[in-house]
Amino acid sequence: MPKIDLAKVPVQKGAGRYPKQFCAPLDGREKQALGNAAGLTQFGVNLTRLKPGAISALRHWHEQEDELVYVLDGELMLIEDEGETLLRPGDAAGFIAGVANGHHLANRSQRDALFLVIGTRTSEDRVHYPDNDLAYEYDGTSFTFTDKSGEPYTE
Amino acid sequence: MPKIDLAKVPVQKGAGRYPKQFCAPLDGREKQALGNAAGLTQFGVNLTRLKPGAISALRHWHEQEDELVYVLDGELMLIEDEGETLLRPGDAAGFIAGVANGHHLANRSQRDALFLVIGTRTSEDRVHYPDNDLAYEYDGTSFTFTDKSGEPYTE
Repeated sequence: MPKIDLAKVPVQKGAGRYPKQFCAPLDGREKQALGNAAGLTQFGVNLTRLKPGAISALRHWHEQEDELVYVLDGELMLIEDEGETLLRPGDAAGFIAGVANGHHLANRSQRDALFLVIGTRTSEDRVHYPDNDLAYEYDGTSFTFTDKSGEPYTE
Repeated sequence: MPKIDLAKVPVQKGAGRYPKQFCAPLDGREKQALGNAAGLTQFGVNLTRLKPGAISALRHWHEQEDELVYVLDGELMLIEDEGETLLRPGDAAGFIAGVANGHHLANRSQRDALFLVIGTRTSEDRVHYPDNDLAYEYDGTSFTFTDKSGEPYTE
């Protein structure tokens, strides 16, 4: 059945996989993986809710994966190297793989914001976090978070 | 600049590339290619408006490309082999590459419907149209529409 039953799609709260010391700003993030729920493997589509004060991710860019966000409700500040841009419902922004410009969304408003984030599922990737001592590598089978010297974070 | 200026994204009206005899049901379709506008190459994200009576595409399925639709406004009937399912704002449906179940959306309401359609950009693909004497092949450089016997449509 192609229609996705949203009520049955798990709501993932918080940062998920980041090393613990980086998680707090994402406590107010809730996401539902719509693409996964439909059995898709080539790209992800996450329906993401940010509570006031929460961010979508640490500011980052992907070496291999294109990304696009589309705002459904509320207001979000897009933050990247060039500065800040307010996004409102109906606004979209795209991030080309390999462009070394860290980006994320911050909910600085007083109410929830809702958006879709779409990202390719490549067989490998590296993710860079310009504001944090953090790097992420995925080799097709497992992923590792390291500090910028390459030392793995262990928890 | 990652934010997409929607006012500058061309609005593509009608069926586009189908052979002429198949185009009429798509006269009321308008789409803006958001992913292309952002320079993305790995997947497409089309913001699509269907006027009353219009369909999203001929009923079809892709051999190689995953697809997902997310309804933003209005009501759309999802039509596939198993029957019909009404989709409302916030509803989503996914279509796994290679699943031989033709699908499309029809606007049977009295007002416009708006949705996002996301699809992978694979290097090659074949598309099947169960209700029409039509097939589509893309080999990475050029595309061909043929009838089901393999005879190309020429216009």
